[in-house]
Amino acid sequence: MRRFLTIAAAAARKIVTRREVWPQEGIASASSLPPAPALAAAVKDLPLCRRFSTMPWSKPVTIDNINPKVLKCEYAVRGEIVLRAQLIQQELLTKPSSYPFNEVIYCNIGNPQSLGQVPITFFREVLALCDHPALLEKSETHALFSSDAIARAWRILDNIPERATGAYSHSQGIRACREEIAEAIAARDGYPANADDLFLTDGASPGVHMMLQLLLRSEQDGILCPIPQYPLYSASIALHGGTLVPYYLDEENGWGLKVEDLRRQLQSARAEGIKVRALVVINPGNPTGQVLSEENQKQIIQFCKDECLLLLADEVYQENVYVETKKFFSFKKVSRSMGYGEKDLSLVSFQSVSKGYYGECGKRGGYMEVTGLDNDVKDQLYKIASVNLCSNISGQILVSLVMNPPKNGEESYELFLQERDLILASLGRRAKTLAEALNKLEGVSCNEAEGAMYLFPRLHLPERALKAASAVDMLPDTFYARRLLDATGIAVVPGSGFGQVPGTWHFRCTILPAEEKLPDIISRISTFHQRFMDEFCD
Amino acid sequence: MRRFLTIAAAAARKIVTRREVWPQEGIASASSLPPAPALAAAVKDLPLCRRFSTMPWSKPVTIDNINPKVLKCEYAVRGEIVLRAQLIQQELLTKPSSYPFNEVIYCNIGNPQSLGQVPITFFREVLALCDHPALLEKSETHALFSSDAIARAWRILDNIPERATGAYSHSQGIRACREEIAEAIAARDGYPANADDLFLTDGASPGVHMMLQLLLRSEQDGILCPIPQYPLYSASIALHGGTLVPYYLDEENGWGLKVEDLRRQLQSARAEGIKVRALVVINPGNPTGQVLSEENQKQIIQFCKDECLLLLADEVYQENVYVETKKFFSFKKVSRSMGYGEKDLSLVSFQSVSKGYYGECGKRGGYMEVTGLDNDVKDQLYKIASVNLCSNISGQILVSLVMNPPKNGEESYELFLQERDLILASLGRRAKTLAEALNKLEGVSCNEAEGAMYLFPRLHLPERALKAASAVDMLPDTFYARRLLDATGIAVVPGSGFGQVPGTWHFRCTILPAEEKLPDIISRISTFHQRFMDEFCD
Repeated sequence: MRRFLTIAAAAARKIVTRREVWPQEGIASASSLPPAPALAAAVKDLPLCRRFSTMPWSKPVTIDNINPKVLKCEYAVRGEIVLRAQLIQQELLTKPSSYPFNEVIYCNIGNPQSLGQVPITFFREVLALCDHPALLEKSETHALFSSDAIARAWRILDNIPERATGAYSHSQGIRACREEIAEAIAARDGYPANADDLFLTDGASPGVHMMLQLLLRSEQDGILCPIPQYPLYSASIALHGGTLVPYYLDEENGWGLKVEDLRRQLQSARAEGIKVRALVVINPGNPTGQVLSEENQKQIIQFCKDECLLLLADEVYQENVYVETKKFFSFKKVSRSMGYGEKDLSLVSFQSVSKGYYGECGKRGGYMEVTGLDNDVKDQLYKIASVNLCSNISGQILVSLVMNPPKNGEESYELFLQERDLILASLGRRAKTLAEALNKLEGVSCNEAEGAMYLFPRLHLPERALKAASAVDMLPDTFYARRLLDATGIAVVPGSGFGQVPGTWHFRCTILPAEEKLPDIISRISTFHQRFMDEFCD
Repeated sequence: MRRFLTIAAAAARKIVTRREVWPQEGIASASSLPPAPALAAAVKDLPLCRRFSTMPWSKPVTIDNINPKVLKCEYAVRGEIVLRAQLIQQELLTKPSSYPFNEVIYCNIGNPQSLGQVPITFFREVLALCDHPALLEKSETHALFSSDAIARAWRILDNIPERATGAYSHSQGIRACREEIAEAIAARDGYPANADDLFLTDGASPGVHMMLQLLLRSEQDGILCPIPQYPLYSASIALHGGTLVPYYLDEENGWGLKVEDLRRQLQSARAEGIKVRALVVINPGNPTGQVLSEENQKQIIQFCKDECLLLLADEVYQENVYVETKKFFSFKKVSRSMGYGEKDLSLVSFQSVSKGYYGECGKRGGYMEVTGLDNDVKDQLYKIASVNLCSNISGQILVSLVMNPPKNGEESYELFLQERDLILASLGRRAKTLAEALNKLEGVSCNEAEGAMYLFPRLHLPERALKAASAVDMLPDTFYARRLLDATGIAVVPGSGFGQVPGTWHFRCTILPAEEKLPDIISRISTFHQRFMDEFCD
């Protein structure tokens, strides 16, 4: 039936507009509309599809009509090389002889437990008890769990209303967990920390998203990011519609950060009309592995203060330092040691359960500590957090545990130390062994990893390799990574996913494969590389 | 030291632009900049703060320079009434006699375990075993866990690489969990489901965000949403910069949905130049509690097909139906029964572990099933999911469990049935008791809750109450809810947070308080209401 509805008729039927639905000021403008068009634009009553009855049904959502910011966003850590690695892994299941290797080794992402790292016993004991508190009432439980895990589980449960680990928490996270974390931060830094400044998050990534969503108003808003950087930042800036303003880490000087480079890039961006809102620093560095000196941190803090920038400190690798000459200092500690408090510096620090010696990526726990922001701005963060209700409770509990591991005198302490130190010592050895092996390869140079979980070797590729890549429409580093994967089953991420000085080529490789597998992995990479160079060198 | 840097000098020092860093097409444009200004806009080298040396340091982020979309977003479920409730709860701890009640009762949000609902034993057993797989090797474990929980934990662990529940999974979720869920959907609907169509999410909310982020390009893109609606939709549309296009549920007819109203609102929005992309349907309804008839669902599906709209089906209350006369049918099942397949309808269904009889809000598990979208569009969803790496693994496991609870013949089956049926029967009774009590109040009318977890009574407020609200600059429903909280400790959400027909006033109240507490709660509400009416009626 065809019906034509006039505006008058529509009015008679009391069509209600968006503005009427939301009488409050805030919401009204949220859904406010452009002014209604003239009456000439009569209401069309015929369903879209029937207006052109010979047309087939066309899908409402296609690649051509989605949000262009989504199209622009790239995330190489799970990009084409990884997708291909997953395909190869599937093929190996059905046709084990289709590749010259038996298994795919994922060195693309810092995911320790996927490569066999075993979780810390104490953490998992407490999580299991909090998941199933009925265990705490049974006598057999004492044979299965350490006494301090049981005590810790009780302490946590007693601080959750109704002991309900299955209830939504406060949008910022369970207050008792935040208080424990605040105490741990204070003990780490020697300066006070406040539970109200903490937002518990599903890993560090949602915290970064939240901050960028808060900051970015348009493409004219910029964020200073290191290059190379972890692509969470470039992806998130693209999704939220801002502009990445790069600053360069100095590969020749161990991926050092020079404040004069920061200043130059800031000025250049400002000259182009970009309003730079924040500076991202990743310390220890990802993908570059450097650990900043305290002196360098002071310069960065002074720069942010002078230039009125929010400092976004990605400190998720704070437990991953492998060299005697360096130590992790939080930006908060350093800023407080300079005499700068809440009224002098705006600083957000991110931490995660995914990294460190714990490597609990799948648990999605983390926090951000927000200091030097006005309460009305923090209220807006609370609101964004509220829309997703809360982060997962196991992750919340776990982040309170990694910040407060067993203490001397508790039953789990010895085992905890042993497990932790084994992992950290092994990571240090692996970082060293892999870097040495990579530096032995023709045309490869690799800085030491002082911390974090990655190496970012530079590839000096022969001219013919660049041409071969170009001929198949690939970037040279992607071409190399693709060849490496197909020949060895080792998945790394091309440097172009992280950003690099134009004309240079790199890849990121985690240091995470089990130590006993390293000799084989190194031998596979070396053999592949030699053949690659033989093929493309004149 | 003052230095002035010319553009020429900058070039000599090799300032690198954003465009050079990201040589790839996609990323280059992501961070592309407006054209560089003329040389006249010389680079300013002096730090911002030093240019005006008498000025105090000003914070880089203030309420006046954050993303206006964040400011516009409102989320009443955790809004002012709840913030006040939390304050009162704190005050009661230190001064128990400061209010005429002993405890705050949170009826603002569907959070069953915060009000004492006990989790399903089997689900928690499996979660604990997966959190601490070392338990599976110990003999004492058999005294503490049911045999089918142990078997299920083994099955899950055997399907995770390295049995690593602490590893990041595939961005869409663990394949084995997705396969189990797909089988369960197929069994529920009688039509096939595909693991590749499933995205496991931290509750349903991140799935909704993901879809809206994908769809919304500007304020000209609209989403048809029911009014009243769950404010996740209005908040998320505001955050992603689109326009909410309301359609009205018919309160006089049990919150029914008339397709001709849908069409009228669609046409009205189109006449205003809005490109309507999708229709949100919440079934069973939140906050309204109605369960759609199959016939009505068919009309909605036909409407989406005819009008080229993506159907976003919020089906998180699929297990919460309390009346004999209604049954839950998924939109996928109904569409397939109409003969519509992947090529005829674009449909996304959301499910969560937070609702149903399980009520596991804090675990943050859920999925969305994406059908009838092109693979290249699904690739974009994969990319958005990848930027946050994956949802939490416990939540992933739990959603596979709630979709596949114990089966007849398994050790836990009897206990499971008993626990489930007790909860559902009690919820049904509570819905009925509360609605009857509300309907007895002067000037209150309340539809039955056929499903979900809420009642949405209408308040016919006396003129003087409206004036009193206006005098303190509050909406009448907020004024009422605030008075109710202060007098009784019961936190409900004003109807204005959900949207309502202009000039009508409501509140949303969960049906979740424990049954033994209901008589007292009803008595408190009734007494308060009578006094309120006495105060404001002439």
